[in-house]
Amino acid sequence: MKPVTKRTLSLLVGLGLGVAVTGTAWSQDTLQDIMKARGLTQKDILAAAKTYTPSGGRDEYIALSSGGQSGQMIVYGIPSMRILKYIGVFTPEPWQGYGFDEESKAVLRQGNILGKEINYGDTHHPAFSETDGDYDGKYVFINDKANPRVAVIDLHDFETKQIVVNPLFKSEHGGAFATPNTEYVIEATQYAAPYDKKYHPLEKFNDEYRGGVTYWKFNKEKGRLEPENSFTLELPPYSQDLSDAGKGPSYGWSFTNSFCTERYVGGIEKGRPPYEAGCSAKDTDFLHVVNWKKAAELVKAGKGTEINGMQVLPMDVSIAEGILFLIPEPKSPHGVDVTPDGTKIIVNGKLDTHMSVYDFAKIQKAIKDKNFEGKDPYGIPIIPIQDVLHLQLEVGLGPLHTQFDSKKCVAYTSLYVDSQIVKWDFCEGKVLDKISIHYNVGHLMTMEGDTVDPDGKYLVSLNKLAIDRFNPVGPLHPQNHQLIDISGDKMELLYDMPLPLGEPHYVAAIKADKLQPEVRYKSGWNSRTDSKSEYAVRAGREKTERTCDDSGKCKVEVFGSLIRSHITPETIEAEVGDEVLIHLTNLERAEDEVHGFAMYGHNVQLSVEPGKTSTARLMATEEGVFPYYCTEFCSALHLEMQGYLLVKPKGYKATVGEGEVGTSYTKADYEKQVKENIATQAVIDEVVGFITSHNYKDFPTVVGLVEDATDQLNFAADAKAKSEAAAAKEDWQNAMLWANQWWQYQVKTADLGLRAKTYLEQNNAKKIK
Amino acid sequence: MKPVTKRTLSLLVGLGLGVAVTGTAWSQDTLQDIMKARGLTQKDILAAAKTYTPSGGRDEYIALSSGGQSGQMIVYGIPSMRILKYIGVFTPEPWQGYGFDEESKAVLRQGNILGKEINYGDTHHPAFSETDGDYDGKYVFINDKANPRVAVIDLHDFETKQIVVNPLFKSEHGGAFATPNTEYVIEATQYAAPYDKKYHPLEKFNDEYRGGVTYWKFNKEKGRLEPENSFTLELPPYSQDLSDAGKGPSYGWSFTNSFCTERYVGGIEKGRPPYEAGCSAKDTDFLHVVNWKKAAELVKAGKGTEINGMQVLPMDVSIAEGILFLIPEPKSPHGVDVTPDGTKIIVNGKLDTHMSVYDFAKIQKAIKDKNFEGKDPYGIPIIPIQDVLHLQLEVGLGPLHTQFDSKKCVAYTSLYVDSQIVKWDFCEGKVLDKISIHYNVGHLMTMEGDTVDPDGKYLVSLNKLAIDRFNPVGPLHPQNHQLIDISGDKMELLYDMPLPLGEPHYVAAIKADKLQPEVRYKSGWNSRTDSKSEYAVRAGREKTERTCDDSGKCKVEVFGSLIRSHITPETIEAEVGDEVLIHLTNLERAEDEVHGFAMYGHNVQLSVEPGKTSTARLMATEEGVFPYYCTEFCSALHLEMQGYLLVKPKGYKATVGEGEVGTSYTKADYEKQVKENIATQAVIDEVVGFITSHNYKDFPTVVGLVEDATDQLNFAADAKAKSEAAAAKEDWQNAMLWANQWWQYQVKTADLGLRAKTYLEQNNAKKIK
Repeated sequence: MKPVTKRTLSLLVGLGLGVAVTGTAWSQDTLQDIMKARGLTQKDILAAAKTYTPSGGRDEYIALSSGGQSGQMIVYGIPSMRILKYIGVFTPEPWQGYGFDEESKAVLRQGNILGKEINYGDTHHPAFSETDGDYDGKYVFINDKANPRVAVIDLHDFETKQIVVNPLFKSEHGGAFATPNTEYVIEATQYAAPYDKKYHPLEKFNDEYRGGVTYWKFNKEKGRLEPENSFTLELPPYSQDLSDAGKGPSYGWSFTNSFCTERYVGGIEKGRPPYEAGCSAKDTDFLHVVNWKKAAELVKAGKGTEINGMQVLPMDVSIAEGILFLIPEPKSPHGVDVTPDGTKIIVNGKLDTHMSVYDFAKIQKAIKDKNFEGKDPYGIPIIPIQDVLHLQLEVGLGPLHTQFDSKKCVAYTSLYVDSQIVKWDFCEGKVLDKISIHYNVGHLMTMEGDTVDPDGKYLVSLNKLAIDRFNPVGPLHPQNHQLIDISGDKMELLYDMPLPLGEPHYVAAIKADKLQPEVRYKSGWNSRTDSKSEYAVRAGREKTERTCDDSGKCKVEVFGSLIRSHITPETIEAEVGDEVLIHLTNLERAEDEVHGFAMYGHNVQLSVEPGKTSTARLMATEEGVFPYYCTEFCSALHLEMQGYLLVKPKGYKATVGEGEVGTSYTKADYEKQVKENIATQAVIDEVVGFITSHNYKDFPTVVGLVEDATDQLNFAADAKAKSEAAAAKEDWQNAMLWANQWWQYQVKTADLGLRAKTYLEQNNAKKIK
Repeated sequence: MKPVTKRTLSLLVGLGLGVAVTGTAWSQDTLQDIMKARGLTQKDILAAAKTYTPSGGRDEYIALSSGGQSGQMIVYGIPSMRILKYIGVFTPEPWQGYGFDEESKAVLRQGNILGKEINYGDTHHPAFSETDGDYDGKYVFINDKANPRVAVIDLHDFETKQIVVNPLFKSEHGGAFATPNTEYVIEATQYAAPYDKKYHPLEKFNDEYRGGVTYWKFNKEKGRLEPENSFTLELPPYSQDLSDAGKGPSYGWSFTNSFCTERYVGGIEKGRPPYEAGCSAKDTDFLHVVNWKKAAELVKAGKGTEINGMQVLPMDVSIAEGILFLIPEPKSPHGVDVTPDGTKIIVNGKLDTHMSVYDFAKIQKAIKDKNFEGKDPYGIPIIPIQDVLHLQLEVGLGPLHTQFDSKKCVAYTSLYVDSQIVKWDFCEGKVLDKISIHYNVGHLMTMEGDTVDPDGKYLVSLNKLAIDRFNPVGPLHPQNHQLIDISGDKMELLYDMPLPLGEPHYVAAIKADKLQPEVRYKSGWNSRTDSKSEYAVRAGREKTERTCDDSGKCKVEVFGSLIRSHITPETIEAEVGDEVLIHLTNLERAEDEVHGFAMYGHNVQLSVEPGKTSTARLMATEEGVFPYYCTEFCSALHLEMQGYLLVKPKGYKATVGEGEVGTSYTKADYEKQVKENIATQAVIDEVVGFITSHNYKDFPTVVGLVEDATDQLNFAADAKAKSEAAAAKEDWQNAMLWANQWWQYQVKTADLGLRAKTYLEQNNAKKIK
């Protein structure tokens, strides 16, 4: 064994280490042994086989889940139940740089309320954009219950693009729901409040407090909501709850249920019974039936009133124009769900034990016949429930939400108090099956189960309590989403999935192949506006400018870049008081080659995906030395991807000249490095030979790696040229360093080549001529 | 079918619905069918069987993972690879109320730097607290690379309790590492910077820039780090990297490696070769060998110098006292790992292809013999590598980190460039096995693999790139942690786990039964200080106080409570300009009965676990009506858990008197409700009969449910008494409402009872006399 200092450190070694990477250790294990050791039943093994997804496997469905109070959205795969991403929506999230780079701040800060930064949301109901009542895979919308807002997430990059603030509501719950062609995104109030921003005593609740439903206009072309083309229906101060849009025969209508139509005002601190008692005292509440298509026309025709910049259709107009009706619905309902064919509306009466199935044709007939049993205190006509019901069916305790199967007439309803899912026939009124869940299910979700064409197959039970299901992790438990196989006659529990962050309220799942996300941006891209960034740079054009205005305020503006494995620039100089803007473009083309950018003491953290341009802004309030570096482990030389922001005292004059710091190199050092590089190139050539002698073009992953490797080799050639130019001038210091840089690019090339070679070996690539 | 309005809505129905909850649908599926349909191999089925964990099952190990740039920690189970929790550490996280309630803000804001709020961290290396070199399951420490800080997380509730800021460093990487009895937590610089807060030009790098290692004193009794008893070793401006503490024979020593001992200063923007070239030009860097036990004594003896409030041991003192030595180590190493028996130190030379195994006894001999080959530019003695090496072994390209097996002499090393894990014998110097991972592994981790007593069994490969492993979710990919079975001779890949948020740097896994987390707090508990909160209230003692000081500044202070399903108070009144403090105690005892608290427009979001007291603080800057509500779906009446903050104009005088709003109730309403309640009680009695006639005391989950149900029944009795008192006064409004509240508590009781009954049925409880 020779000491390492005496040895040439060549890439050649290691490549030749012929240890087989596939083994046979498991011949010693049988399935029976494992089952015995782990206490698994046969049923467990079947469930495992139905959910386990091997390395590189794909999930059939992608679920977009609310993240509850985390203010985020959660993306997971079904049936593997593996979480793929948390998307920053209403809450700043540093891994994504969301709320840290200026581009995403511009989105997040659209959500300010009363001039205040709100740094969370209580996300509730995701809604996919739809075309002809089916998910089209382009966008997903999510609402914030706490601070009535709706966000738009683009599914081509899974980033939040827009946040709109409801200028009237102070609380909402029933959103987001899309109309069948995403004409509108529906958002309804929860707790009534005055539309204006003034104080009104609770004694004026009946007169001054209001509910409502907002229809946010969506521009599919631009992928943005248009507040100027949106409108709100004024509604009584009931607690409006969930909504659903009609489809097929009921297209153009929407349905919004409610609770606390008692209009009870609590005050337990004054000895009054609490809200929970007063808001659930009556046996029925009201389903709101709205003709949104006609409402939109009325607004267009100037029948609306502008309040806080939003067009509002007053109740008296809606009543006079015949676009708003109420139907009694069982006690404190939660979900309202339109059947896939659009002919029926199902209401889940939380404190009733029945499902109520309303017939849309009967509703239309009652409206046509003016068959009303009276009016509510605000003059809205009430349609008699018995004349519009298709059927009611007793299903259990605490029915909350319903979703649909691919099988005709089959629905699934969550039973909160029973901790069960009930499968039933809404045409015939028959309970078909029940399964216990763990514990206390809120929403449930079947695959594309709220579209015109549900897929069936799987159901996810969004349980509100986990209690003993998982290893304990303190007083705050994870949530538990249980995956249930609904392909057969009987429901079967497949998997318990803990949710580690946030309490998801509702989830929607889309067939995975409807999504076509990108893996990179066009070079120099502002991902939040989806346009070329004015701060983009190309390689070699990086620059730093310091400009001062007449008042003496100065700005340092960096147009920089990120690439394996260096940041350009490696030094940024500023003076105390300067504003510093750092625009960074990721020059990579390779999939997953993300670079980050963090800096000491300035709350700076960017995530710059391939092609993206991001901006960090800081005020240089203190003199000092502030290291920065790449926060995504991007390459072998990742730790060396560093630099310094140097903030000098105002008006600082240098007293030392430029000089060399650290180690010096000789001609011998240079020559040793060159020798190493030539040896390394031989290895690369060998790997390249292996790849090109196989049908690598049949493997998209390998094609991507080869493209990337080619880029790296071009960089190596550039560094080699610099090295040779320095050597020609006998500048051995720079000759050696550039030679080392040339080797660094060779290492990156080898990394890619080896990954490609292994991939081809593991995927049985064929030798070609 | 009767219309719902005419029907008594009784809890009785639903209970009798005897649909079997276990089915036999799967008899139609065979394992072969599923394998064929999903394209699974026999090997996949074995892997599935080794990882699948059925509902209620437990994981054998709990992993505490860095959350990378998310600034959080991640908790997951092994072998199920399910993520159980994200813990807020350096980043505010609203689901946990972390950085939103005043109690956690007090922890988070300990991490301010230069007076600035830093709202993220780049977490790197979790370290469990240790006793005798083994994990004791009490605490975990995590560092922040971007803003040198260390946080303490208490494993009894998985909450962050303390953050300390390093007053000298501007960058670190090599932390946290615990000494064998958690005497100290080690944190080393990464990018050198001046210790002071002043600007120093890079030309002064050699003289003014410094590295260092801080030894943070940990008080095990108090569970807190003690800055006043901590100290830092001044080191040269190399990029110090990872550390490990000696154990057994090497106890009292610690080892810190480094890269860029070239002390290269980049400047690609000026045409200089980048850091990556200059920092990897030499064939060797330096392993720092430190006698920390003696260093601590020297500091105690007054040999230190205080800088920014931290005791610093200057290099000349360390050299003179013989506590600091350097040993050459192969090119740009990453990890340094002490063997379980403490006799050897393994260095992973990132740009070398060899593992270098140093012998601690030989190091001690060299020191004793003053066998030095020279000094570094700062006068630190250099021990000749060839005299202290046990062996070197060629293992592959890009070795980064090493962990240990339960089998003697067996280690596993990550090979970044090769995208492989190598299993090798560090006593004999033999490669035993290799396995390919996907792709480019950074850290790796075996079960308790860095303790004196590793468990073997599983290995997790923390890959830095996922590329094509999962369904695509845009340009920013999840990370991929691959679970590998290391119980046999050959390593076998079991599972690919996407990390949906943050890029974990290192993970440590502890045997699950070493953790004994609580599921509730003592009533009225400040979880961040771990002491009784001064703002705690007991049920019935809630109050709101408004006080003004002499300057006319007023404060509204609420001492409130949360319980299924109401917030006390339900109205909070304030005037514009008031400071509002809302202290809320969760009165629940039941496991997982968390309540949240969100309010419109004020960035208020609390998570109040059973027993906890949390405080929201806001400034009432605007008049208006601000709804608040519970954000955790806690019960059937969760949506009705609401209230209003009413902010009146300054000096507002009421013009309306108190009056009833909404629905009125009659004697008939009251009597109908009472009838319903009596029927409901009969159901409850029946369920109670079922439970008590079975051996429910053998099931801790059920015992918890029964305790909780008993609480709810007591509340019901209280509401019943109030109802009857109102009825006696012929106050039918309140009689009806309190009767409804009595029923609400019955519903909560039934919910619990039904869960308990189902649990007993599903777990084959036995009938007793």
